Amino acid sequence: MRNKGFTVWFTGLSGSGKSTLAKLLSEELTRRDVLSEVLDGDEIRKWLTKGLGFSRADRMENLYRIAFVAGMISRVGGVAVTAAIPPYREAREKARKEIQNFVEVYVKCPIEVCIQRDPKGLYVKALRGEIQNFTGVSDPYEEPSDPEIIVQSSMQSPQESSRFIIQKLEELGYLSPPHQTPK
Amino acid sequence: MRNKGFTVWFTGLSGSGKSTLAKLLSEELTRRDVLSEVLDGDEIRKWLTKGLGFSRADRMENLYRIAFVAGMISRVGGVAVTAAIPPYREAREKARKEIQNFVEVYVKCPIEVCIQRDPKGLYVKALRGEIQNFTGVSDPYEEPSDPEIIVQSSMQSPQESSRFIIQKLEELGYLSPPHQTPK
Repeated sequence: MRNKGFTVWFTGLSGSGKSTLAKLLSEELTRRDVLSEVLDGDEIRKWLTKGLGFSRADRMENLYRIAFVAGMISRVGGVAVTAAIPPYREAREKARKEIQNFVEVYVKCPIEVCIQRDPKGLYVKALRGEIQNFTGVSDPYEEPSDPEIIVQSSMQSPQESSRFIIQKLEELGYLSPPHQTPK
Repeated sequence: MRNKGFTVWFTGLSGSGKSTLAKLLSEELTRRDVLSEVLDGDEIRKWLTKGLGFSRADRMENLYRIAFVAGMISRVGGVAVTAAIPPYREAREKARKEIQNFVEVYVKCPIEVCIQRDPKGLYVKALRGEIQNFTGVSDPYEEPSDPEIIVQSSMQSPQESSRFIIQKLEELGYLSPPHQTPK
C-alpha cells in the first residue's frame, strides 16, 4: 500500500527545539521505512531563497517557497518536515490551504527559556540590537490559533515530545503503528 | 510495493515540444497510478525563482533550484518531470549528479522547425532583437552528450514520442508495464 503523503509544519520561536524535533521525527520515519525530506530553514535559504532577507515580505516569500515544495512532496506520497521559523499566522494559513494533509506542530516554549538556551547565540545579538527583525525580540511571533499538535518543549525532553508527535500522527491516521516483530 | 522515484529531465530548444511531452508523460503516469509533479519552467519562475533573469548565472541558479526540488521528489518515491529549457550542459551534469535515478530526454528538433512553430511568438521577437539571451538565437544551446532517451519531435507525433519515452522508462526499469485487464 502506498504511503499517504503529508507535511509536518513545525512552528515556534528560535531555540524552542524545532530543528531537534524535526531531526528526531525524520529519524523515526526512516526507521518506519517512510520516506521524508526535512526542509530546514538554513538549507532552504541556501538553495531556494538565496538573496532573500528578513523583512516581512521576504520572510513571507521564503515561507511560500517552502510551502510550494512541501506541497509537491506531500502530493507524490512523501513526508515533508519543515523546521523554518514561520512567524506569521497569515503565511501558515496560506500554507495550510495549499498543502494537502497539513499538520501544524506548535513547539511552545517561554521566550525566557529560549533566551537562556540561545543555541546559536542569536538572542544575545538581537537583544543588543545587532540583529534586526528578530522573531520574538524585534519582530512579532504570532502564536498558531489551532495547531494539530502542541508540545511544551520546556517541560519535557525532546524524546518525550517526539514520541508524543508520533503518537498524534498515528491517531490522525497519517502513520500506522510500527509492525510488531514476532518474539 | 513502493514506486521507485525518478526524474525525467526534458531538454531541447524552445518549441521543440518539451512541455507537450511532459504533459503527455504526466497523464500516462497518472493513468498508471504513479504520482508525479511537473516542474514547468514558467511555474517555477513564478514560485521558486521570482526575480531571476535570463543571464547565464541566473539561468544556472534557476536550474539548480529545479534540480534541488526534483531531487527531493525523487527521493521520497515520486516522479519529477521537468520541462524548463536547460541550455547548459554544465547545469544538466550537475543535476544528474544530485538526483538519483536521473533520465535525460533530449527532444531533438531542428531550429528551423522550432522557428516555424514558434508557439509563444518568442522566436520572432528574439530574431528582431527584442528578447536578449534567447536560447538558440542569441544564447547557446549545448546539446546533451549522452542522454538516456532521444526523441526526434520533427519526425514523429507527440503521441509516438510519448509512447517511445514510456517504453524506454519500462526498459530502464523505472516503470512496470501496465497491468493487463482480464478479458
